[in-house]
Formats: sequence, structure tokens, C-alpha cells
Amino acid sequence: MTIPVTLINGPNLNLLGTRQPEVYGADTLADVEARAVDLGSKLGLDVTCLQSNWEGQIVDWVQAARHEAAGIVINPGAFSHTSVALLDALNAFDGPVIEVHISNIHKREAFRHHSFVSQRAEGVIAGCGVMGYDLALRRLAVLAR
Amino acid sequence: MTIPVTLINGPNLNLLGTRQPEVYGADTLADVEARAVDLGSKLGLDVTCLQSNWEGQIVDWVQAARHEAAGIVINPGAFSHTSVALLDALNAFDGPVIEVHISNIHKREAFRHHSFVSQRAEGVIAGCGVMGYDLALRRLAVLAR
Amino acid sequence: MTIPVTLINGPNLNLLGTRQPEVYGADTLADVEARAVDLGSKLGLDVTCLQSNWEGQIVDWVQAARHEAAGIVINPGAFSHTSVALLDALNAFDGPVIEVHISNIHKREAFRHHSFVSQRAEGVIAGCGVMGYDLALRRLAVLAR
Amino acid sequence: MTIPVTLINGPNLNLLGTRQPEVYGADTLADVEARAVDLGSKLGLDVTCLQSNWEGQIVDWVQAARHEAAGIVINPGAFSHTSVALLDALNAFDGPVIEVHISNIHKREAFRHHSFVSQRAEGVIAGCGVMGYDLALRRLAVLAR
Amino acid sequence: MTIPVTLINGPNLNLLGTRQPEVYGADTLADVEARAVDLGSKLGLDVTCLQSNWEGQIVDWVQAARHEAAGIVINPGAFSHTSVALLDALNAFDGPVIEVHISNIHKREAFRHHSFVSQRAEGVIAGCGVMGYDLALRRLAVLAR
Amino acid sequence: MTIPVTLINGPNLNLLGTRQPEVYGADTLADVEARAVDLGSKLGLDVTCLQSNWEGQIVDWVQAARHEAAGIVINPGAFSHTSVALLDALNAFDGPVIEVHISNIHKREAFRHHSFVSQRAEGVIAGCGVMGYDLALRRLAVLAR
Amino acid sequence: MTIPVTLINGPNLNLLGTRQPEVYGADTLADVEARAVDLGSKLGLDVTCLQSNWEGQIVDWVQAARHEAAGIVINPGAFSHTSVALLDALNAFDGPVIEVHISNIHKREAFRHHSFVSQRAEGVIAGCGVMGYDLALRRLAVLAR
Amino acid sequence: MTIPVTLINGPNLNLLGTRQPEVYGADTLADVEARAVDLGSKLGLDVTCLQSNWEGQIVDWVQAARHEAAGIVINPGAFSHTSVALLDALNAFDGPVIEVHISNIHKREAFRHHSFVSQRAEGVIAGCGVMGYDLALRRLAVLAR
Amino acid sequence: MTIPVTLINGPNLNLLGTRQPEVYGADTLADVEARAVDLGSKLGLDVTCLQSNWEGQIVDWVQAARHEAAGIVINPGAFSHTSVALLDALNAFDGPVIEVHISNIHKREAFRHHSFVSQRAEGVIAGCGVMGYDLALRRLAVLAR
Amino acid sequence: MTIPVTLINGPNLNLLGTRQPEVYGADTLADVEARAVDLGSKLGLDVTCLQSNWEGQIVDWVQAARHEAAGIVINPGAFSHTSVALLDALNAFDGPVIEVHISNIHKREAFRHHSFVSQRAEGVIAGCGVMGYDLALRRLAVLAR
Amino acid sequence: MTIPVTLINGPNLNLLGTRQPEVYGADTLADVEARAVDLGSKLGLDVTCLQSNWEGQIVDWVQAARHEAAGIVINPGAFSHTSVALLDALNAFDGPVIEVHISNIHKREAFRHHSFVSQRAEGVIAGCGVMGYDLALRRLAVLAR
Amino acid sequence: MTIPVTLINGPNLNLLGTRQPEVYGADTLADVEARAVDLGSKLGLDVTCLQSNWEGQIVDWVQAARHEAAGIVINPGAFSHTSVALLDALNAFDGPVIEVHISNIHKREAFRHHSFVSQRAEGVIAGCGVMGYDLALRRLAVLAR
Repeated sequence: MTIPVTLINGPNLNLLGTRQPEVYGADTLADVEARAVDLGSKLGLDVTCLQSNWEGQIVDWVQAARHEAAGIVINPGAFSHTSVALLDALNAFDGPVIEVHISNIHKREAFRHHSFVSQRAEGVIAGCGVMGYDLALRRLAVLAR
Repeated sequence: MTIPVTLINGPNLNLLGTRQPEVYGADTLADVEARAVDLGSKLGLDVTCLQSNWEGQIVDWVQAARHEAAGIVINPGAFSHTSVALLDALNAFDGPVIEVHISNIHKREAFRHHSFVSQRAEGVIAGCGVMGYDLALRRLAVLAR
Repeated sequence: MTIPVTLINGPNLNLLGTRQPEVYGADTLADVEARAVDLGSKLGLDVTCLQSNWEGQIVDWVQAARHEAAGIVINPGAFSHTSVALLDALNAFDGPVIEVHISNIHKREAFRHHSFVSQRAEGVIAGCGVMGYDLALRRLAVLAR
Repeated sequence: MTIPVTLINGPNLNLLGTRQPEVYGADTLADVEARAVDLGSKLGLDVTCLQSNWEGQIVDWVQAARHEAAGIVINPGAFSHTSVALLDALNAFDGPVIEVHISNIHKREAFRHHSFVSQRAEGVIAGCGVMGYDLALRRLAVLAR
Repeated sequence: MTIPVTLINGPNLNLLGTRQPEVYGADTLADVEARAVDLGSKLGLDVTCLQSNWEGQIVDWVQAARHEAAGIVINPGAFSHTSVALLDALNAFDGPVIEVHISNIHKREAFRHHSFVSQRAEGVIAGCGVMGYDLALRRLAVLAR
Repeated sequence: MTIPVTLINGPNLNLLGTRQPEVYGADTLADVEARAVDLGSKLGLDVTCLQSNWEGQIVDWVQAARHEAAGIVINPGAFSHTSVALLDALNAFDGPVIEVHISNIHKREAFRHHSFVSQRAEGVIAGCGVMGYDLALRRLAVLAR
Repeated sequence: MTIPVTLINGPNLNLLGTRQPEVYGADTLADVEARAVDLGSKLGLDVTCLQSNWEGQIVDWVQAARHEAAGIVINPGAFSHTSVALLDALNAFDGPVIEVHISNIHKREAFRHHSFVSQRAEGVIAGCGVMGYDLALRRLAVLAR
Repeated sequence: MTIPVTLINGPNLNLLGTRQPEVYGADTLADVEARAVDLGSKLGLDVTCLQSNWEGQIVDWVQAARHEAAGIVINPGAFSHTSVALLDALNAFDGPVIEVHISNIHKREAFRHHSFVSQRAEGVIAGCGVMGYDLALRRLAVLAR
Repeated sequence: MTIPVTLINGPNLNLLGTRQPEVYGADTLADVEARAVDLGSKLGLDVTCLQSNWEGQIVDWVQAARHEAAGIVINPGAFSHTSVALLDALNAFDGPVIEVHISNIHKREAFRHHSFVSQRAEGVIAGCGVMGYDLALRRLAVLAR
Repeated sequence: MTIPVTLINGPNLNLLGTRQPEVYGADTLADVEARAVDLGSKLGLDVTCLQSNWEGQIVDWVQAARHEAAGIVINPGAFSHTSVALLDALNAFDGPVIEVHISNIHKREAFRHHSFVSQRAEGVIAGCGVMGYDLALRRLAVLAR
Repeated sequence: MTIPVTLINGPNLNLLGTRQPEVYGADTLADVEARAVDLGSKLGLDVTCLQSNWEGQIVDWVQAARHEAAGIVINPGAFSHTSVALLDALNAFDGPVIEVHISNIHKREAFRHHSFVSQRAEGVIAGCGVMGYDLALRRLAVLAR
Repeated sequence: MTIPVTLINGPNLNLLGTRQPEVYGADTLADVEARAVDLGSKLGLDVTCLQSNWEGQIVDWVQAARHEAAGIVINPGAFSHTSVALLDALNAFDGPVIEVHISNIHKREAFRHHSFVSQRAEGVIAGCGVMGYDLALRRLAVLAR
């Protein structure tokens, strides 16, 4: 029996693969999501993939995950640094949360060094490229039940 | 043909498994290192494991890795927050570096939120327990050659 | 003749009563809103209750209140700390505004100590539980006309 | 049977009603205290009213309240921002504490935005004019027993 | 042949002309947009005008502009100071960006002195009233092609 | 009848066109001033152009403008960030002031993000290249009389 | 007819003349007060001299001065840096206030550089030794009536 | 011949032993003072014990100690963090001063980490429980004469 | 025999009396200087009056005063806040220095609260209007010889 | 039966008695250690004395003390301010820790005011000269068992 | 063939040798300049010596050096800490720049620790007395051509 | 007779010449040390060269230099920014200390702008490449005896 988990991508991550391929790689978000579903099924996880540029939408999805998912993998993008609402929603979620950043945010502008989500997440994976999603799912598979 | 990589653990990580098992788990450093060697060999990596409470020793090891290793996985422990010397040594290393923290340092005291090593590392993995070493090796196997 | 007022609840307040009842009590948002309508009618206020996790929605409602309400009671939740857009919308509203926080935000994380909305609100009530809405309505009944 | 509570006003609040009536209203401190006693008796509270410009006096009163009162309503005035001694005295008091500020301190000079007392008080009510005392007593009536 | 450009107005700018006419003038947003279209056509620009109080909507529009516009004039309103998501979306846009503020934000509250958008925009025009849009279009006409 | 206005350029702007043409363009200060006079005459402005590397000289000129000019366009260069004396002189000037920066100072070193002059100027135009002077004159023509 | 004014000295100023005469001179507080009364009578001022180490006492005196004095000269001593209560009391006083510091507080520890009283006082005189009281009275004689 | 010394306890220390005995122990202030007198007499010190919640009172006592005591042991309680007046009074005292804190203030809230008194005291003893008074007297016995 | 002293006024003080007379009074700088010469001669001082908007000029004058004056009264205007060169020049001057500010700089913008000159001056007089020069000369007459 | 305890001195404390005897006294580290062993034996403590300039060495010793000592007295010297590794090692030690500083670090440079070790130590004794070791052992004798 | 270089001294350095000889030595600026010319000629440099207390003058000289000198040695004195204009002028100079400070500015007041010129200079030499000019010329001789 | 001096290089300086030759030049540490010995002998200095990546080792060497050397040239590398222990050791050394940095640390990351060693060193030379050692020895030859 598989465990339902939610994979949420935040603002501008829908542009993956269509710009700066030398930085972010050639994978599109669809590629990333497909691979996540595949790897998930190998790990016993049923991965639902979501993306939005709208903070309210993501808060809604996190709230819904309270009843629909045993764990969350989230790349909050820019909302990492600005959204207390997202932190609060995650605080209301009981399962494990793994935060992913494709780039190493600690090497970028100072305002990207702080993440509200990191104050809630069990694990944080940054700078491992889109492979970070794989690593996060592997960790989630251990934690979620 | 395997790729040589170095796994370095910083101060107090030799105590792994002998205190706060509810936090850090029951694995000792020896267990962790054994598992890293095992997983490494599956990934085509020849993992050399080192640990020291002495900053100078770790700087020496990182310098030696310039000639002996194609990549580094490092849990700098407390030196993450205080050692510019370690950062400089890593800056002189050409291969990929993955930084690991067993706990999520962003949930701890403020002085643990900043890591000099993160300004150099390709990837940073925190809060995934000792499984973080596994994830780091998986990433290194992709980057190192 | 009753005075129309708007009661707005921000992100995650739709979860009231369904989590941490020892902290927030067993009242759901529906309970709170029903009681607000009741108390309002006793105080001569016609209370319209709104809640959203979406900042844009709340800004729209505050703008609408310029034509539809004589006063606002608002628990901005996490938007208190991050939304200048909400502050600006409230600045364009002419009637009195009372800000409510169920918990005492001054006892929580440092980033919750500052509220943009407090720079606009006539009154601020924090840490009085869901009874804070009652107190806010009592104050609004005096100010609004 | 009524519940004994203490209402403490800090420095310069004895001047209420005698200056800036357009800001603070025409009520004198005597008026405010009389109304508090009245409302208190309706709420089942026996309200003792005290005011001083002397920090030591107020600390003494808070200490005495440990044996004489089931709850405290306090407008610490300027001591909000400067008196750790008052915070410590309140920390030694077991019953509920409601803090009142007549004006909205968050709209005033930056040094008025922080209150030591808020780190102890259950509830904080600011900017509701002298009506803030009424609201505080209503809340205290629920909490004190 | 005209060059397509997008003119985006952020939160609360739909209220232009309906409040504080002594500050913002009597022009409504419709007036401003009409004039922008007019001036644009004289400058060889085909101006599409958009406004929203929703950050997600604006991020979506900026993303769409990647395929539909050669340049952007944007008055981000309150999002200037809080939206990293908007900055990231603009970073993914290749054409020139001109930022407009009707008032001189440097004379206002300290939290309005910093704009994330200014870290991306080619030009920034503040305090020139609604005429700032005209100036911005004149500049864009030179830069966009 | 033309309106007299003063165009002041601060330190190092006499070097325009002679260095970093890829950044600042090939126009010399003489070119810029000539174009300003031309555009001014079309706008009904009689533009007097001044430049100095000496703060005292610029303060003197601003003081003189009190009697000789109806408005000022000023690119304070480095004095933007350091000269309170210039701010005070501008504060004693009754007419409108438009501040120009050729580059977008918000993208440069942190010490260039703050301008004392911006606390006085009606309008601020940055990052529009030497065309910024044109835009400033257009704005001044509307404000000065 | 003489004008009544109050001269208030704060904590530890009763020790004047009994310690560090090389710094503070040999004059005792009694000497200083006697000279102030003398100079006052020459200037048409009836000077009442007060000193206390107790903040509450000084607040009481400032409040009393509302009815008894046309102006205040005050050396708040250490309370300059810590007493918001004193600032509030002075804010309730309508006449002119001149603040005196015997030493130049700007040359001392950083925590002495800021004075709450300076935010209220018309004039501030520091570092002129006990002669500062004379200068303050001369200024008060011009302002008070 | 015994040496006279003063032992001063600041605000709220009169509550010793009556609250949080698991933290502060079961000793009352009377117990502590009795033991101090006893130990003092063994060390050749004549210990006078004083306690007040009033800053002015403590300043007065420190001033009196200039003529009556050869040394001071002081637990300033909350005044450590807020009273410049106390620091100034101690600066006027010529003998040695030992500062005592029952708890380790460095483990508590950030505002308790700084003590004005520590800028004057010869010795500082924190976190040794009420035994800290004993240690302080032992040190004072060596320094005072 | 009279004592030579120098009275220096910094930038924009040549505008005295010609603007904001409700703030600065109707006295021109010439009036102020004439009165200073008069009062000086009564006090046994030979006052030389200087004013410049040029920092270098004032530094030169302060250097010259090393050989020509026994004391300096200086209103550094805006240079108070920005000129380390002026501080250094004054540090090379052996006689007493009295700093004057016509307005109370502590009530103005934060950047005016700090004066480099105050780190050197014996006395500082602020907020006493142009009478501040008189008070400064009186003090200088006591100190200079 | 005696209780084993460890006395650790950090960097540069081996120089005790050989420099600045007017500050640190004439006692050498050997003298201090001898006296500690003596006093320890009277208090029922078996004191092992260690000193190193090497952070790694001290971390090793603290780790060893986990099995060999019931308590630690430590003067971390400069490592107080810089060594998170030492803090972590002490955190892994279960017995009581008393921190000693010979001088009063709060009177020295600002970077010496903060000690990482103080976040772990039960007691902190500063400014009592080498007698501080005696006081620390007395306290340890009470706590260790 | 000699290489032309410019040696610039900033404000108050014309006083060298005439004050505090125990700190700055007995050499006058003329001595220093003569020695610089001498040493320069030995090193193949043609040294032109300039000094001014006027920032504008120094900016002019740096601009002139663009055409007249292959390198600059500069002791900016107080302008190090305040002059962005000087930094900008140096940024427009293509040759090497060596910054000299006679004293070690890092041991002086905090505001002297930062130098704008250091952000441009190739080399910085501080605290080597007037010999610093010799060292600077030796370095310049290597870099300039 | 030659004067013994110590030349100490800190962490990672053993890598000189083996990386980034375009930045640090092609000289190895051995080359640099050989040249230092040579130049030293010409200047009458007997130069002993040491290098370590271990802070404790360098502290030991500085302590040894108290008896063995008349002066120290030190490039503390990363320890400049982090080692208070090194500062303390240097404080215990009586002879002159010259600090060298090969690169201009003021142009690098912010955490490299502050050096603890600069608070002790007589002279500081930065950004002069490996020639900085020569300049430092020349200065030391004048100071040491």
C-alpha cells in the first residue's frame, strides 16, 4: 500500500528548463514531476505534484494536505523568504516536511539566506539541483507512514 | 574504477550514538562510516572516513584531498559557524563539496544559522539525520568524476 | 438602524477549533463568526464575516468595505507581519479599524512582534483568545457610525 | 461572591482628563476608576484602584497582589518600556494579567513599540481609549477565579 | 510596426483618483492607462495595461510578458517592498523594465525605502506623480526593440 | 517667456563620455548640457548648466538659485550619499527639485542606496542613462512656474 | 514681578563637590543652588531648587510644576538615558524646558549619548560645567513668561 | 576589629524562597541574610543587609555606604539591566564591589545579558545560587580593608 | 587686554534670517556676528567672525586659529554630522571649543543626532536659538586665557 | 572518598604570573594549580589540572571528562568568545560546569562580553582574580557528587 | 626614463611634525615630501607632491592624474572615511593606487576603521609611520609602468 | 650582530604558488621564505620562518617568540578574523608586530574586513602581494632592536 505525499513547487518554478539551462539544467517542471512520481512509486509513495505562483493557493494546498497526505516535499521558491502564512499552514500539518532548493541559497543575495519554512521543516536540502527532489523523497519515505 | 572521495566529520561527531539517542539515533560514528563505505562502493565511490576535534587537522585533510580525492562530504559540526580557515581550505579544493548537518541547524540557536562552509559547498543537506550522509554521497556520485 | 461592519480573518484562521484546542479553544471559525453576528446585532452592528488565505482577496475586501462598511475588525494572521499591501488598503479606508490577535503575539517569535496593520488600526487587542473579537466589536460599536 | 482584582495605573496617568482632552478624552482618572469599580461589580469583580509615578511602589503593589488579588489589570505607562523590575514582579504573580494602553503605542515613537509587560501579560489591549479598561475587566472576569 | 509592452500596476493602484486627490491628483487609473496607450502609440509602443491586488496574478502576467512583450513598465506598489517572487519573475524576463512610483518613496516610512524590484529594473522613476508613467514609456521606447 | 532653471552636476560627472562608454555612453558632459539647453528651450525653460567637484561650490550655487532659478535638476553624484550640507541648501530652496542618477544606484554598492537629496527632491530618476536629464527637465517644466 | 521656575537635579547630583573635584569642580550642590537663586533673582526668576535620587519623586515634581512654575531647568543625570516616565511628565508641562549636563555626555560611554529628555527640551547645554546652570537660566529668562 | 560591609538586594529578591523553590531553593531572604551575617563575622566582616524594590532607595544606600562601609556586595536584580543611576552611585563609591546573580543570567532572555553594574564591579558571580553571596563575601574579605 | 577668539559658522548659516523666521528668528548672520563682537568686547574677547559653505575653508580657518586664537565657538551646521576632517583640525587646536546649534538637533532627523565635533568640544549648546552664541561666548570667556 | 574533577585552563593562561603582575598577580599557573589541588582535597575533590593553547586538545579533554570527572572548572580564555566546538563538547558532559575568568570581562573590549561557555555553565565567576578558581571549586564541591 | 607618479596628502597632514611629535614624529610634511622625491628618483619615479584640506581640490588632482601620472600614493586622512567622491575619482584612474595611513587606523575610533579608498586601492599600508610613504613608493615602483 | 625575528604564516598559506597564480603569483611559500631570509640578512635581521594550519601551534610559536625574537611579521590568514587567542598571545609579546595580507582584504567578503590582529599590530600592510613581506621586514628592521 502506497503512502500519499504532496510535492509543492512555489512561484516561478513552472519556468524550470526554459531559462538558464546552464544553471538549472534542461529538465522542465513536467520532467521533474514525472521523475518524482516514478521514484515515489519505487519508494512506496503516491506523489501528487502541484505548482503555483499564488501564495494563497499554496496555503490552501498545504491545508488540504492535512487530510490527504502523510508528508510534504516543498520548494517554496521566493515564498521561503517572505511567507509567514506558509509557515503557519505548515505548522498546522502534522506529518514530516522536507524543504528543497535547487540552488544553494546561501551563496546568493543575503535576503535569500533566511527561510521561514526552515523553521518548520524536518529536513532542508539545497544546492543539489533538481536531484534535490529525489533526495527529499528518499528522506520522506523513511519519515512518513 | 572507483572514484576516491573523503568523508570528514568535525568536532564532537565522534560522540555520535553515545548521547541523546532520541535525537541523534543509536548509530555510532563507526556505524555511520561503515554504512558510508558500503553505500559508496555501490555508487562507485571509494570513501575514506576521517574525524577530528582539531580545526588544524581538518584543514590539513582538506588540503590533502586536493591530491587524493575527487570530492568531499563534510559535516563541519561547530566549525561551520566559526572557521574561515576551513572555508579557505575548501576554496582551494577543486572538486565538489557537499555539506551535511544531522540536525536542522535553522531550528537551533541563532549562531548556528550561518555556516561559512555553505558559501563554498555545492550542496547543503540538513536535518535528515545520519541519512544525510547517504543523500550527500548520492549527490557526490553524480558530481564527482 | 444597524451599522454595517466587516469582520475579516486572514490566513489559516479557517482552521480554528480543529487544531491545538488547548491553545485556541474548541470554537471553530463558524462558531466565532456566529457569535460575532449575534453580539453585533445586540450592539447595533450588521456584521459580515469573511476569511481568506489569499492576500489579494483580503485587499479586495478591504477596498470593497470602503463603500459597504462603516468599520472593520480584522485578524490579519500572518499577513500582519508581511503585507504592506494590506496596510495600504486599510489606509484607503476611512472608518475605524480594530486589529485582533487570538494569541499574545509579543510572547511568540520575534518576527511576530511587528504588525504593519498596527500602524493603521485605531485599536489593537491581542492575547484575549477568541473573546478578542467580542471586545473588538464592542469598541467598534462606539467608534463606527 | 466577588473576586478581588487590582487595577494599577503607572506614571503620569494621574493626569488623565487634565490635558489633551482631544486625545485622551475628558475623563479623569477618578472617573475611570469609578467606572471600573462599577463595571467590576457587575462582572463579579471587586476592583481595587491604584496609581503611582513610582516604580518601586508599583512593584510593591504587584507583590501584595499575590496575596490579595486573583487578577491584575495594569496600564504600566512609561514603565512598559523600561521596567524589568515590574516584569519580574508580575512573573511572580500567579493570576492572569491584562495590559492596557489608552493610545495605540505602535503608532508612536519607536521606543514605545516594545513592552516588557507584554512578555508576561495574557492579554494586551491598546488604542481603545479609556474604554480599554472596560474591555480588560471583561476579559479578566473570564480568566480570574 | 509597433512594439508590444506591458504596463502593470500593483495593489491599491486601482483606487487612483478616488482618494487624496491633493496628493495623487484627480486622474483615475483608467485615465492614466488611456494616456499611456495614447503616448505609447505616438512612441511606437503598443501598451497593454494590467492591474491587480494579487501578487500571484502579477507574477503570472510578468511570466506571460516573456512571450508577449518587449518591455515592462511596472508600478509594483506595496509589492516593491515585500515580493521576492515578483523580483524572480522579472529576473526571468529578458527585456527592459522601468519601475515607477507615483510618490517619492524615499520621503515616506523607512520600510518603503527598499524595493526588490529596483534590483532588477533598468530605470527607476519616483515622485513624478502620474507623469512618471509617461517618462517611463519614453525611456522604454528607447530601450525596447 | 522662459523659466530659468539650474542643472547641476556633482563630482566626477565632468568625466562623462571619457570613460566606460559601454556603461555611460559616448556623450560628454558638454553634449549632455547642450542637449539639456535645447530641450529646455523647447519646454520653455532657460537652462543654466553647472558642474563642480567641490561640495562648497555646489552649496553656493544652490543658494544662488534661490534668487535666480525656479527649479533645479541635480545629479549630486557621490554627494548624494554624504552631503548633509547639500540637503540643507536644497531645503532652503523653494522651487521643485528633480534628482537624477545616470546609473541605477540601487544595483550598486550598499552605501549608494541612500541619498540625502532624495529626502528633499520632488522627483528621483535613476538608471535611465543620460536620458534621465531629459526626463527630469520634462517633469520640471510641469512643476516650475 | 518675578517668574517662578523650577531647577531639578537628578540622581547622584547631591554628591557634587564631594568627589572628583578635578572634574566637577569644588562647588557643592548647595553652592550651585545658591548661585542659581541669586542669578535667578537678577534675571527676574524665582528659582525653586529640588534634587532627588528617586525617579518617582522627580516625576511628581515635574507634574507639580505644571501649576507652580513657568519653566524648568533640569539636569536629569542618569535618568536622561533611561526614564520615559520623566519624558512623559515633561511632555505634560507647557512651559519651556532647558536640559543641563555638567559634563559633555557625547564624550562618555555610548549609552550616555542618547537622552529621552532631549526629545522634549527646548534647549540642551552640555559640558559647560556647573556654569551650565547659569546659561540655562539665562535662556529660560528669555523663554518663560 | 571587623570591617563594615553592605549587602544590598534589589527588586523582588524579598520574594526569595516563597516561589519556584525548585529554581531558587527554599531559603528565604531572611535565611540568606542571616547566613551572610554569620559567614561575615567569621571572615571579619560586619555585614549590614538591605533590600528594596525602589531604585531611589538603593541609590541612597549606596551613597550612604560611602561613609559607612568598606565594600559592597550587591544583587541588583532587574536594576542590573536598566539603572544607570545605580551605576553612577557605585562609581562614586571607592571600595570594592562584588555583583551577585543567583541564576546564570547569560542563559536567560537577551535583555538580561547586559548589566550596567558589571561595568563597575570588581567581581561578578552568577549562577551559583544563593551560595553566590557566600562566595562574594569571601572575595570581599580579601579586597576590603 | 582682550583675548582673541574665532567664531565660525558652517554651511547655509549665511542664510540666517532670510528664511523660516518663525523658526530661526529674524536676525541675519550679520546681526548675530555684530552682537557676538559686542558681547565679546564686554567679556574681554576679541571675536573674529567667519562663515563658509566650504569644508576645506573651515579646516583652514581652524588650523589658522592655532596661532591666532585662544578659543573657538563653532556652529558646524551640516558638517557636524559628516566631517571627520573638521574633527581632526579641531583636535590639533589646543584651546577650548564650544559647539553651538541654533535648533535642538536631537529633535530632528536621526542623522543629525550625532556630531563628530561633539567628540572634541568642551561644551555643546543646542536649541537655544541664536542666543546660543551668547551663551557659548560666556563659557569661552571663562575657559580661554 | 574524593570526587574527581577537571580544572581546564585555555590559551595563554600558561603565561600567568610572567606578565602584567600588577594585573594578574605574581602567581604562576603552577602556583594556581597547586593551590587548586590543595583546596580540592580539603573539599573532597580530586582535581586534575590541564592547560592548552589548542582548541582541539581542550575539546578532547572535555570529552574525556565525560568518563573521568564529576565536574569541570574551566577558564576558557579566548575560546570563551569564539569556540562553538567547546560549547558542544560541554553540552555532551553531564556534570556541573563552573566558568572562571580572572579579570572582569565585562569591563574589557566588547568582543569579550559574550561567552559561548556561559550558555552551558551552571555558574560564572569573573573578576575575582585567581581566587576565582577557589570560589569555583567551592561551588563545584556542592554541585558535584 | 622616470615614471611620473602623484603623492597626495589629505586634510590636516600639512600639520605633520608640528604637533604630537611623540606620535607622528618630528618630520614635517616638507621633510616627508622631500624624502619621497629622493626615494622616488632612486626607484625611477618622478614624484609630484600635493596636499590639500579641500576635498574638491583632491578630486581635481586625482582627475588630472589620469593624464599626468602612472600611479598614485595617497594618504586621504579624514577623507578616507567620508568621501565617496574621492573613491569615484580614483575609480576613474586606471593606474595603481597605494593608500597610506601614518597611524594604525584599526586601533583608533570605530569610525576610522572603514575607508572608502580601500575599496579601490591595490595596496593599503597603515601604522608604519611616515615610513609608510617609502613602502608605498617601493610598491608603486613595481606596479606602475 | 643580527636581530632575531619570526615570520609566521597562518592557515592555507602553505598552498602559495600552487593555485590561482594569476592572483597570488607563482611564488611558493618556500620562495617567499627564502627571499625573506635573504632580505632579512641584508637588513640585519635573522628571520625564522614558520607556517601552520593549526591555531594552537601559532599561539605556541608567538609565546615562544617572547624569548626568542625581537619582532614578528605575521600573515595570520583566516585566523585574522576569528582568533582572539592569537590576539591575546600577541598582546603578551613585547616587541613590534607587523601584519601582512597578500590580497587587499577590504575588497573581499565583509567578514574579512575585520582583523583581531590589527588591534595589536604596530603596522598593517595589505594588498601588496608577496612583496608585502619585504615591506614588513623593512619596517620591522627600523622598529626592532
